[in-house]
Order: sequence, then structure tokens, then C-alpha cells
Amino acid sequence: MSDPLNHWIVTLVCPDMPGIVHAVTGAIVEAEGNITELQQFSGLETGNFFLRLQTETPADHDRLHHALAPVIERYGMDCRIDRVGRPLRTLVLVSKAAHCLNDLLFRQRSGQLPVEIPLVLGNHPDLGELASFYGVPFEARPVTNGDEKAAMEARILEAVDEHDIELVVLARYMQILSPELCERLAGKAINIHHSFLPGFKGANPYRQAHQRGVKLIGATAHFVTSDLDEGPIIEQNVVRVDHTRSVAELVAIGQDEESRTLSQAVRWFAEDRVLLDGQRTIVFQ
Amino acid sequence: MSDPLNHWIVTLVCPDMPGIVHAVTGAIVEAEGNITELQQFSGLETGNFFLRLQTETPADHDRLHHALAPVIERYGMDCRIDRVGRPLRTLVLVSKAAHCLNDLLFRQRSGQLPVEIPLVLGNHPDLGELASFYGVPFEARPVTNGDEKAAMEARILEAVDEHDIELVVLARYMQILSPELCERLAGKAINIHHSFLPGFKGANPYRQAHQRGVKLIGATAHFVTSDLDEGPIIEQNVVRVDHTRSVAELVAIGQDEESRTLSQAVRWFAEDRVLLDGQRTIVFQ
Amino acid sequence: MSDPLNHWIVTLVCPDMPGIVHAVTGAIVEAEGNITELQQFSGLETGNFFLRLQTETPADHDRLHHALAPVIERYGMDCRIDRVGRPLRTLVLVSKAAHCLNDLLFRQRSGQLPVEIPLVLGNHPDLGELASFYGVPFEARPVTNGDEKAAMEARILEAVDEHDIELVVLARYMQILSPELCERLAGKAINIHHSFLPGFKGANPYRQAHQRGVKLIGATAHFVTSDLDEGPIIEQNVVRVDHTRSVAELVAIGQDEESRTLSQAVRWFAEDRVLLDGQRTIVFQ
Amino acid sequence: MSDPLNHWIVTLVCPDMPGIVHAVTGAIVEAEGNITELQQFSGLETGNFFLRLQTETPADHDRLHHALAPVIERYGMDCRIDRVGRPLRTLVLVSKAAHCLNDLLFRQRSGQLPVEIPLVLGNHPDLGELASFYGVPFEARPVTNGDEKAAMEARILEAVDEHDIELVVLARYMQILSPELCERLAGKAINIHHSFLPGFKGANPYRQAHQRGVKLIGATAHFVTSDLDEGPIIEQNVVRVDHTRSVAELVAIGQDEESRTLSQAVRWFAEDRVLLDGQRTIVFQ
Repeated sequence: MSDPLNHWIVTLVCPDMPGIVHAVTGAIVEAEGNITELQQFSGLETGNFFLRLQTETPADHDRLHHALAPVIERYGMDCRIDRVGRPLRTLVLVSKAAHCLNDLLFRQRSGQLPVEIPLVLGNHPDLGELASFYGVPFEARPVTNGDEKAAMEARILEAVDEHDIELVVLARYMQILSPELCERLAGKAINIHHSFLPGFKGANPYRQAHQRGVKLIGATAHFVTSDLDEGPIIEQNVVRVDHTRSVAELVAIGQDEESRTLSQAVRWFAEDRVLLDGQRTIVFQ
Repeated sequence: MSDPLNHWIVTLVCPDMPGIVHAVTGAIVEAEGNITELQQFSGLETGNFFLRLQTETPADHDRLHHALAPVIERYGMDCRIDRVGRPLRTLVLVSKAAHCLNDLLFRQRSGQLPVEIPLVLGNHPDLGELASFYGVPFEARPVTNGDEKAAMEARILEAVDEHDIELVVLARYMQILSPELCERLAGKAINIHHSFLPGFKGANPYRQAHQRGVKLIGATAHFVTSDLDEGPIIEQNVVRVDHTRSVAELVAIGQDEESRTLSQAVRWFAEDRVLLDGQRTIVFQ
Repeated sequence: MSDPLNHWIVTLVCPDMPGIVHAVTGAIVEAEGNITELQQFSGLETGNFFLRLQTETPADHDRLHHALAPVIERYGMDCRIDRVGRPLRTLVLVSKAAHCLNDLLFRQRSGQLPVEIPLVLGNHPDLGELASFYGVPFEARPVTNGDEKAAMEARILEAVDEHDIELVVLARYMQILSPELCERLAGKAINIHHSFLPGFKGANPYRQAHQRGVKLIGATAHFVTSDLDEGPIIEQNVVRVDHTRSVAELVAIGQDEESRTLSQAVRWFAEDRVLLDGQRTIVFQ
Repeated sequence: MSDPLNHWIVTLVCPDMPGIVHAVTGAIVEAEGNITELQQFSGLETGNFFLRLQTETPADHDRLHHALAPVIERYGMDCRIDRVGRPLRTLVLVSKAAHCLNDLLFRQRSGQLPVEIPLVLGNHPDLGELASFYGVPFEARPVTNGDEKAAMEARILEAVDEHDIELVVLARYMQILSPELCERLAGKAINIHHSFLPGFKGANPYRQAHQRGVKLIGATAHFVTSDLDEGPIIEQNVVRVDHTRSVAELVAIGQDEESRTLSQAVRWFAEDRVLLDGQRTIVFQ
């Protein structure tokens, strides 16, 4: 049975003022839409207003946009209209650790993650076989000096253009991106940090966690910014540990949190649920 | 600095159809309201639509109701308008166990729980001193036979009328309410069940949990219905246990979950966040 | 640097009485062992005593057993000596759902799960490709009638003998085992139940959970017994859900819990950490 | 029915070497003890060995100590023998926030916390009424300048002597202790930090957490050291939050975690379950 209706996601950001919801929903009514999901938030610090709705309507993209256009103009909105379930074009960067890539690919194939992955780029060849099992093209390029790093970053930007990439996922990619690349990918690159943030900064957070005897370890998915590990936080998880765990065991336990935290953040982003409010994220779950 | 604006909660339930949000927000605009929070849900099984919003507006209750009246009528809405933060008039029923009552009273005094408690009724006198510390009137009535039970239930209903009670909380009240009383209190009585539900039914769930060697124990806050422990679930929590725990330790551990689960459910109810959709609850957190 | 020491796990079960730990550790001293981990538990209901220790020692298996033999005899012990990290020979049964098998195989390859899997048996061919990617033999046999079911069960027992199987894992195997097979595999077959237990019994627990509006859903790993879903519980996990989740979403969310709960239970079993005390499990984490 | 047996907790710390458990349990056998609980741990970094056991025995303290004395001497042990369930003499320091004190006092009265509290000291008078309800002496002393601070610290030390205090609990005590006092109370003072640690340091961690948009907030109970918020961690908990929470709501949510985290740490300490291994804690749960 084909569904004659279109299902759209509409996200809107603008300065907060009265009447926005009424105006937006009026446009939806005009486009014969039924609203199936609606969430809003007013950021008190920034004065921004955020709205995400899903609607089912006979209207196509152009008609829906046409109905919304006067509202968008009146309120100075940043507006995005997307089809529910459309797979987001996603580039994945990896090094040697397989757990995050495995989780992303398995969920993508299982239909739990609305992304399509035209390419996985690694600075090591190790994960080629895994990508290949899932039918995803894989390229490895060594990054052992400044020239190779520049070449890799050029390749990343080229791939972004070539495949019209909407999201870059750093799935335990063990290279620091240059400030220029961070700038170019601002708001569309997600990293998984192998620690609860704020927390132990820099190298080997699990060793630091062990030395302090922490009772919970975790992982944080955040937007990539040039300020390392300081980008807006999208999702975090922790798990309980005790004094008997070695550093190696903490690493293994942490990997589970890294996988599920990154996949969760990617899914929310792909469903247009993650919006930026200054240094904070709005996540409309 | 006094705030010249009124802050209202509006909750609406009606059959789902297109245009509701637009119509409702139009009425809010007419009442010069700014919407600070809005959540909606369409129950696919029941075909019901649920909406809760908070608005700040110069309008008083009558003016706001007047603006909403045509919408209420057009859509056949069940509508409730309440002031944000107004304390809900709450009757608490107890037996001997102090943990839930203590948690409710402490949070109420700390300003975390928007309720006022004109009376605590117990079938044992044990908790009188605790109620008294918090300045809450307490009455104890023994319930050891059918006549005493009928008298207690009559007193409950009398107290509900006398204090214009909006919520009855069974805070580890160890008496089964009669079907008639359940009926009279339908939708405004919350019980805390000393187990995760669905789960071990009937007496001594912790002993059953121990015998089965469960690894998690929990608590469930639910609406009271005449079908024991089968009322709509409002909130649940669990905590991890292991084989070393005795039944007595499981009971102590479970009490923490009971307290916080019940207080959470009461808070959400007092903030008009809990709506009924057949046998399910909608909880607009 | 090779380690000249052997690392052994010793597990002991016997009727509880004073002096056991002293006697056992005396035997370890005699075998020149250093105890690196030791846990014990006395089951009050059954009167059983349980002990698990790890020791590093120059002694080989025979010498260690020789040292323990008088103690084993004196206390009537059920004793097991195993090498730390030895992969457990494991048979996995599957149907169509891939998430549990994928998790087991990925963790096995990553070195997080001390098992070796000589065979995966399915009643559908769907998961053959996944097993093949991990280099694990796969056999599919349809089970659509009584004869085919009997043939499958005969094949399971044959495989158990052929590969000297120590553990059978039902990784979302959607067939009920016959009482005879349950009996034959008693204490060495683990099932993952797609629900928190005790809970909704029988078919489609997620639909039941949805209808009741539960706020937490979960998964339970338990030993297989002929009493369906009533075997001793090894591990349980839950995750929070709310009213917005459809049955299909509950299923997807539940699958994460199923995977990690099953893998955790398998790991503990493979490390000799799971002992039976009547209907309860002792899990020495 | 009186129990003719004594129940003792024995904790031991010494340099790790083979044979310790055998020697210790031999002494327990000599004292006719049955071991009901035993946990051990070898700290690889420090080379220390830790053991905690519970035993039921006809032996009194002197006889048990006599049996253990040769073992203690041979291995150079730090040994502590304590009666199971003996209430620990505990001094509580407070300021204005009531939630932690309320939780400690309620649990103490309910029999969930094996402490006795001869005195609560506050730098504000606000919590006197609460202490009084639980029948606990309360003293308030203003701390608004250096002299008053010195006087308060002198009073703390005096109270420690006067009541033979074994544990000092900083239950949201908003004064920084002098290095001298920290030194004097080393290993027997527990603080609750109103944040997950490592985390936002210094003032107003909730505001910082809000600005960063963290998705989990928490609390950490740790030993007091002169290095502020850097003492060995005893227990940590977190709870999920989202972008809708204001700073004030984060504070309220965090208070629940503070109360239960502090009470948990105090209970473990009072049961002799918390041992120090350099900068880490061993917690024998």
C-alpha cells in the first residue's frame, strides 16, 4: 500500500518573539499538513527560538516551502525542510579501532540509522575488510607527516564535495584536524571523545581515570571545533566501574559507551534533531 | 521585582485532526501570550490528541479561557487551565513506613514539589511525629476490620471534599482500597508499588525477586484502579543488585527507588504533565 | 617476555562449613600459587558454599589438582580448574535477527569475549553471510514441522559432541527447545529473553509493554530450562523509554539491550564466574 | 533469641606476597570463626594487598586479635577489627542546604546507616531545627572572617576529641578547610562535591555545566585533602538532563545525586569497606 502523503521534517531557528508557533502552524494548515510531532525551545541566554515539527501532507517540497516562505521572511528564520527517513550522506573517518565503525555500519544495514555512507577514509588500512563486508568503499592514506596530513585533509574536502557530504563522522579517527578543516566542517562534523567531558583532557584519559580511581567512565559525542574536545556536546553516556578494573579493561568497557554514544548522536543528527544554540546543543528527542 | 505577566499551563485532549495546534496557538496569540513550552502527542491506537503548553501573558484566567473557548468547542476539547507553580491540594495516605512521606514532605518544604498537604491520614499512628515536624495535620485511624475500613474510606472521601483535594497519594499505604473508592478517585490517586511492574504480583515481591535471583529491582508509580497494580504507569526506576543481597537488603535498596519514583510522579502530576490515553499515560516532561 | 607462571581459575562448590577457605588456600600455598582474585559466597537458603579464585603458580594442572585433591575429598567439593583466558567452545543458535550474533562475533574477534565458535546453526539461512565474514562455519536447517524440529535438535546434540561444546548460546533463536534437549543442555545453555523478567510472558512482549505504557524496557539473559523463561537469571539491563515510542521503536531499542546483556552473560560464563545455587545464580564479577 | 556468636569485620593492608589469605584464614580457624564474607585486592601499582572479611565466632575481640597477632607481625599488616553494625561516631558539618543532612539523619534513624551523630556543626543556624527533630545536638558558629574560621576549626578539632569522632562528614559545608585541618583529618573526612569529578572546577559548576550543555550531571563523594576536590574518589553518580533545564533546575536535580552519593559513601566507610591505595580507593561492596 503506497502512502499518498509526504512526510516532512521542518526545523526553524529565529529570534524569539510571540506568535511564531501560530504563524508556522498556519502555514502547515495552508499546505494541508497534519502535524505528527512538534517540539520547541526558547534559549534564554541567546534569545533564539527553535522549532522542529513533522508533518504529513499531500504537499510536495515546493508547495510546503511556498506556504512557509512568508513566515520565514517575517521572522528572519533559518529554515530547513527535509523528507522523513531520507538517508544523510555521511563520510566516516577512521584509524585502527573497529568498534565505532562496526556499530555504525551494522545499524545502517539494519535500518536503525538513516545514513548512507559513500566512503570510509582511514589513516590506516586495517578497517578496509570490515567496510568491504558492508559494501562500503574504503580508502587508506598514511598520515605520518605534515605533507601527508595536508593531503588527507585535501582528500576529505574533495570527498565532501564529490559525494555532497552532509555529515562527517570521526569514528575514533586518531588525527587532530587542522583549524582550517574544522572551520570548513563547522556544524557538520561529529567526534566521539573517549571520556566523559568535561574530564581528563589530552592523551590517555583512561589511564588518568584509573589513577584517580573514578567510579564511572564514559564517552561524549560532540561537534568538532578547532578548540579540541570543547565543541558543543550532543550525547554522553557513562557506565559504572570499580577498583578492580585495569586500564586495559577500562578501555574495553569504554568502547561500548563510545559506540552507542556516537551512533545515537549520528542518528539524532540525521533526523534533524540536533540544533546549535551558541555553545550548547538543542536535541529534540 | 514583580512580574506583571501571568504564567499559565494549558492542557488539551481531543480527537486528533489537522489544524489543532494552529487553532490553539491562535487563541494564545489573541490573548497576547508568548508560548514558553509546548508539547503534543497523537495516540495512534486511541486517535486522541494531547497538547500541553505554558504561556506568559498579561491575560488573566477568564480572558485566556474566553480566547480559547471557540477552539475548545470546535474540537470538543477537554481543557484545563492552571497557574504555573500553583500548589496542588494533596492528601497523603500512609501506614508505618516513613521513607516516602519523608521524601514528599522534605521536597515540598524545599520548594521542589508544588503541592500543599492539608492532611496526612494513616492507619497507624507511627508517622504523626514526622508530619508534625513539617507542620502538617495528621490523623490516625486503625483499620483492622471491615467496619474500620469503611470508616477510613468515608473519612478519606470526607477529607477530599473538605480540603478540595486534587490528588490522593498512597505513600506505602498498606490497605487495598475498595472498588468504590478507586472509582471515586479515578485519575487522581497515585500509588507506589514496591516492585518493578509488570513483575512479581501480590505479597512480598522482594522475597520473590530474591528467590528468582533478579539482577535489578525497582519501583513503579501508577494510577490507582480497582484492578490491583494494573493501573496506568506514570514512572519506573530500577537499581542493580547482586546475589549477595538478602531480602532485607533488597527491601532497603528498594525503598530509595520507591521514594524518588513516587516523588517524581507526584511532581509531574502537580505540573499537569500526566495525561491519560486509555491504559497508558502521556508524560510531557 | 614469556610468563613462566600458569594462571588458573579454581571454582568450588560444597556444603558450607568452617575452615574451607583456609583449607583451599593452604592447597594453593602448597602449589606455590599466589592468589590474584578470590570471591566467596554462602547461600543461606541452600547451605551451599561457593568459591572462585585465580592463582598464578609454576604448578601445572596436574600438580594443582593433586594439591587440592585432599581438600576436595574432605569437603565433598565440586571442583573445576581452568586456565585463565582459555576460549570456551561455544555453539550459537540463531534465526533471522542479526544483532546478537553480530555482537558476539565482533567481540570475539576483538578479544573481548573468550570463546571460540566452531559452528553457528540457524533455522533460517539469513545470517550465513555474517558468520562467513567472521570465518565461522554456518549451517541452516529449516524447522517448519515436528520432523524437522527433531532433526535440528539431533543436529544440535551431534554438534555438541563433535565439537566438545561447553556452552550453547540461543542468540534470538526463535524455536522452543524440547524438554529433553533442555535437560541435556542443563547448566550450559544461555538464552536471551527479549524482555525484562519477570514481566510480560509469551509472545510479543514489546506490544504488551507498549499497551501498558511501561517507562523502562529491558532484556534478560538466563539459563535454559524446560520451564520457558523461568531459568536462573544471569544478567538484566533496562533502558528508559517514553510514550512517544511505537512498538517498532521499542523493538529496536530493546535489541541494544539484548545484545549487550547476552554478551555480558556469555563473557561471565566463559570466565567461570557464573555458578548455580538452586534457582539463583551466583555471579562473581 | 540471642546470638551467642560475635560478628567481626577484619580489614588488613600489607605489602602483597604469597600465602597471606591462607595465613589469615588460619588465624580465623584458630579463633573458631566461620567466614561469612571475604574480599581481597592486590594493587598492581602500589604493590599493596587489601583484605576485608566478616567472621562469626565465639571469640571476643581480644581472642581474635591474639590469634591474628603473629600473622599481623609476620606480614607487617595494618589491621583493624571492628564489630559488625557498630555505629561509627560521626561529626557532620553543614551550612544552609538541608538535603544531605536530612538524608543522613533519616537513614540513620531508619537503621540504614550505621552511624551515631553526637553533634552537627554549622556556619549558619538554619539547620538547627532539622537536627533537633532527629534529637541531634546542633551548634552554629558564624564564619565570616579569618578569626571566626580559626575558631570554627578549633571547635571542630575539639569536638573530634571530645566525642572520639571517627568520621567527619562535610554535608554541603560551604567552607574550605585549612591545609592543617585537612592534614589532621586525613583519611577520615568525606566531602560531597556538587559535580561529577573530574569536571568543572571551582565555583558554580552547574552554571558551567549548563553553558557547556552537558547531558549528564552528577555528584562525587571523596576524601578531603588539602588539594581541593582532588581527594580519592569514593562514589559517583550521574543523572540525565537535557537542554530544557535551567541552572536552578540542574541544581535541584543535582541535589538528589548529592544526597544519595554522600549517604552511600558514608555507609561504606562506616562498614569498613573503604580502603586507601595511594590516590585511589578500594571499595569492597
